[in-house]
Amino acid sequence: MAIELYATAGSVEKDLRNHVVIVVDALRATSSMITAIQNGARSIIPVSEVEEAVEMARQLGNQRVLLCGEREAKPIPEFHLSNSPLEYSSDRVSSRVLVMTTTNGTRAILRARDAKALFLGAFLNAAAVAAAARENGENIAILCAGTNGKYSLDDILCSGAIISRLLDIDGNQYMDDLARTALTLYDSYREDLRASLTGSTHVERLRALGMEEDIRFCLQEDVMDAVPCYMDGVIRDYSA
Amino acid sequence: MAIELYATAGSVEKDLRNHVVIVVDALRATSSMITAIQNGARSIIPVSEVEEAVEMARQLGNQRVLLCGEREAKPIPEFHLSNSPLEYSSDRVSSRVLVMTTTNGTRAILRARDAKALFLGAFLNAAAVAAAARENGENIAILCAGTNGKYSLDDILCSGAIISRLLDIDGNQYMDDLARTALTLYDSYREDLRASLTGSTHVERLRALGMEEDIRFCLQEDVMDAVPCYMDGVIRDYSA
Repeated sequence: MAIELYATAGSVEKDLRNHVVIVVDALRATSSMITAIQNGARSIIPVSEVEEAVEMARQLGNQRVLLCGEREAKPIPEFHLSNSPLEYSSDRVSSRVLVMTTTNGTRAILRARDAKALFLGAFLNAAAVAAAARENGENIAILCAGTNGKYSLDDILCSGAIISRLLDIDGNQYMDDLARTALTLYDSYREDLRASLTGSTHVERLRALGMEEDIRFCLQEDVMDAVPCYMDGVIRDYSA
Repeated sequence: MAIELYATAGSVEKDLRNHVVIVVDALRATSSMITAIQNGARSIIPVSEVEEAVEMARQLGNQRVLLCGEREAKPIPEFHLSNSPLEYSSDRVSSRVLVMTTTNGTRAILRARDAKALFLGAFLNAAAVAAAARENGENIAILCAGTNGKYSLDDILCSGAIISRLLDIDGNQYMDDLARTALTLYDSYREDLRASLTGSTHVERLRALGMEEDIRFCLQEDVMDAVPCYMDGVIRDYSA
């Protein structure tokens, strides 16, 4: 098995068709999507633009559709849910179709849509997504959303967590240099992930917006077994 | 002061005109260029293509010109010097004009040519290049060459060394997430840089080609005070 890690969607120069891809946007898009699927959402449709989301919801045209997402980490006016995983409770999302747009996460998912298989990962489902990826192939690429086109420590630490679970399954791996770095950082910081993220750009931005509870929620490891899987424009539970 | 770090030339999405840029290709392009300038080379002209180098040397048309560089880490047929810093001795390079082409390093230099000031850094001149950069501005971007368009641990560790010297000058800095990561890795590994690079893609490639002595040479810290500076297509000593 080989594990490659990319810090941003823009840094992937190769064709991903022979790779199983795990997209990571730990704070908060993939965490919210995993929570939604865990809590019974029927599907999630990721779209790039706010207007596109509104139009998609109009076309789907029924009461089971929820408009979800953020711009600059803030809620979008008139949308049902923001990008806080705390909002994706069973009573809100169960059996619903979610149309979702997020700044960095959606871009990463769309970049990887030609992958052999495409899963969504976060700390919440690290072990489960590692197992699903391994079932689907030998060449695994983890693609981080990053923050505004740049390397973001929260995504890298989350990738380190997923890599450690992949190594639990099969310890004999080729890892590229960034995958090695992520594992080193995760092993150094796993005892206190929240403290280790102090000073990092994205976390400080979320803190400034009063989102400490979201951060705390998203840093829980292996508490969900939902593995959102993207295929032909729609995200559904892999086990379904 | 603010310090940003980019793992590859392709990952820079912003305009660098207001930044002082340090280009790092520690194994081996910037190490060779620093060694050349330290040993009295008059100037270095970086070009992208082998044919371009040959044509440039023809135009310059005198015996003081040396053709230098590599392709896939190997010497280029008919060129005077390869990309090994061990070849850039005083007796070979003193008073010479070097026309140089390297796979990743040249690309990074050309990406940053609009910078407010552009210096070349490596372990060899970490303290000297940090001081020169700080003299020229508050916003410093370190731009790594990377390996074949990807994050390369040797360049990141070298950037960590340069960042630690920048903090020695002024400890109160904004650092982006990748700069923080580089400093963490450097602080963890500085006691044995060579061992820490075992398993990394670029180092293993150089080892397979029998270049262990080059690696050993390039990992020496602060042994040179030459600071190559790029301006208008030509690299010269900053102090000159």
